[in-house]
Amino acid sequence: MKHHLLTPGPVPIPTFVQEAIAQPVIHHRTAAFHELYRDLLEKMRYLFQTKEELGLAMGSGTYGVEMAMYSLFKPGSEVLVLENGKFSERWKSYGRTMNLSVRPMTKSWGQGFQPKEVLEMVKKLPSLKGVVITHCETSTGNLLDLEEISLALRQERPELLLLVDGITTIGAVPFYLDAWGIDLAITASQKALMNPAGTFLFAMSERAFQEMPEPHPGDFRHLKTYAQQARNAAFPFTAPVQLMYGLKAALDQVTGQGLPHIWQQVHHTARTFRQGIKDLGGHMLAEQPSDSLTAFSFPKTDHEKLRGRLTDQHGFELSGGQGELKGHLLRISHMGSSADPDLMQAVLEAIKKEIRS
Amino acid sequence: MKHHLLTPGPVPIPTFVQEAIAQPVIHHRTAAFHELYRDLLEKMRYLFQTKEELGLAMGSGTYGVEMAMYSLFKPGSEVLVLENGKFSERWKSYGRTMNLSVRPMTKSWGQGFQPKEVLEMVKKLPSLKGVVITHCETSTGNLLDLEEISLALRQERPELLLLVDGITTIGAVPFYLDAWGIDLAITASQKALMNPAGTFLFAMSERAFQEMPEPHPGDFRHLKTYAQQARNAAFPFTAPVQLMYGLKAALDQVTGQGLPHIWQQVHHTARTFRQGIKDLGGHMLAEQPSDSLTAFSFPKTDHEKLRGRLTDQHGFELSGGQGELKGHLLRISHMGSSADPDLMQAVLEAIKKEIRS
Repeated sequence: MKHHLLTPGPVPIPTFVQEAIAQPVIHHRTAAFHELYRDLLEKMRYLFQTKEELGLAMGSGTYGVEMAMYSLFKPGSEVLVLENGKFSERWKSYGRTMNLSVRPMTKSWGQGFQPKEVLEMVKKLPSLKGVVITHCETSTGNLLDLEEISLALRQERPELLLLVDGITTIGAVPFYLDAWGIDLAITASQKALMNPAGTFLFAMSERAFQEMPEPHPGDFRHLKTYAQQARNAAFPFTAPVQLMYGLKAALDQVTGQGLPHIWQQVHHTARTFRQGIKDLGGHMLAEQPSDSLTAFSFPKTDHEKLRGRLTDQHGFELSGGQGELKGHLLRISHMGSSADPDLMQAVLEAIKKEIRS
Repeated sequence: MKHHLLTPGPVPIPTFVQEAIAQPVIHHRTAAFHELYRDLLEKMRYLFQTKEELGLAMGSGTYGVEMAMYSLFKPGSEVLVLENGKFSERWKSYGRTMNLSVRPMTKSWGQGFQPKEVLEMVKKLPSLKGVVITHCETSTGNLLDLEEISLALRQERPELLLLVDGITTIGAVPFYLDAWGIDLAITASQKALMNPAGTFLFAMSERAFQEMPEPHPGDFRHLKTYAQQARNAAFPFTAPVQLMYGLKAALDQVTGQGLPHIWQQVHHTARTFRQGIKDLGGHMLAEQPSDSLTAFSFPKTDHEKLRGRLTDQHGFELSGGQGELKGHLLRISHMGSSADPDLMQAVLEAIKKEIRS
């Protein structure tokens, strides 16, 4: 029985990425390194749809968002966090750790935010500095209409700094940093980019770059340090060279296939899967399901048992619920090699067998 | 012409490590992951020579030491930094960034510290909380007598917290966390462990663990978060699973060969190389050269030109000087696959050819 890892990150690493990672080590203070990073940054421009500032650093998506908050906001700054799941709850909690004046706007897990209500909230906060937006909540699979929310905020309060957790969206569903007026966005290597966990990528507006104070030398947490050096395709610390080889291989594929093709493939896969779940009597947790992953449940079902059976009997490894949702749902990825409608049909067949047995 | 990367980190990645990294992805909330991490932690105990607390996290060595300073000391704490090169200078600078009351004890680059003078300094600082010690300064190749310094401090001021940058020592030269009374030590994956850059490993005393306040949830910078979870072979965030496979492969080799064998091999290699440099009329920068790397120079020599010739004409890629030492010396690794006296003889032959031409 073939084993399929279908968790919404990490996703399986394709052979061409593994081979790229196995290339000989190069030192990060060499022309060969600058060439690699320059090429990678150029392809990241396409990924983030930006002409502005870019960079990458070591760490998980959590590191990425927390480093972004640290780089963009000063202690005491008033920051709105749109909170509707485990990850956005983490950004709220971290904001408090770093002594931001955090204003959470809270919805139950699986619900979204309408542009209008975000605007109303913002009108009540005249000294607000910025907003932390989780594009897709990986804990629930809910996608926000980031374009509408962001453009509405830009129009109403052009000075606000918009920070986006794009960890399970960028590279899987439409995302446009410049056109949507986003100031800083983060994605992680082990999601749509099909790479080992270990790096996150970011892009930021010129405005955000200018507003950030000059970082202290040697402060590994400050994204401006990475962005400044990235202008010369250089890296401020020891660079994760092997992981960058892997990312370059994935981005070569992204630029080769084109984002529209990938978005469509992910969308078609998610659509197929959601329809199948509905046909089996299940339902989606998310008010507005993301195409990058689906969180679903069935009535009167022991979801942890179902998850165990899918792994052990069929070789399909899904995720369960996190935090308060543990035991209440399953989550499946449609990113990377999971963006495959035939694979989803096979999973649906297995689910059908299990829930009827 | 075969290319040999001989920089003092990153070092070449052996095939068996590459193959380990290319294993199928596993999710970090599974029994298979816990098994991997448990095995890794057990072997890390041997590496650090400790029975106490352990963990690993994503990041370079710089991340590691800065996260250690953040985890161990509170803003306002008085901390002595032994500063004698580029990296220890960075720890001083970072300590100031995080608002420690930093007391630097400064020597010229390449010089070391005698236990007696460290003790005298400490006697003048009655409210001192801890000491940051760079075991080997990678910028100069100078090794401190960590055992003597640490045991002297332990005897004089048992309450001091001793933080050690062991980035170019642990796994290459003798190091004993428990026996030497070290509270927290860091090493990085791309040095003696022959892995891609991307993770650092740490070990800490039970005392340091107890003294650290409870970390805020979701604070990726706090090493106690990682250490607490490591007790159950769990990881607080997305884990760098592929990189952990690679580390496990390297540590399998370390435990298989035994540290004494590796230390001796590194020592013999360094000794061979240093003798050869002396025979050619060169000299070592370090007062007390480390076996893990050698920083050396020749009179009336354009070292950057020599470095270029060694790479282009002979395939031997060394590092130059950093910061104020740029152009004044070359640095070569004796860690991992560079721990090879025959390879060092070949480099010496190439140097001989170049400096006499």
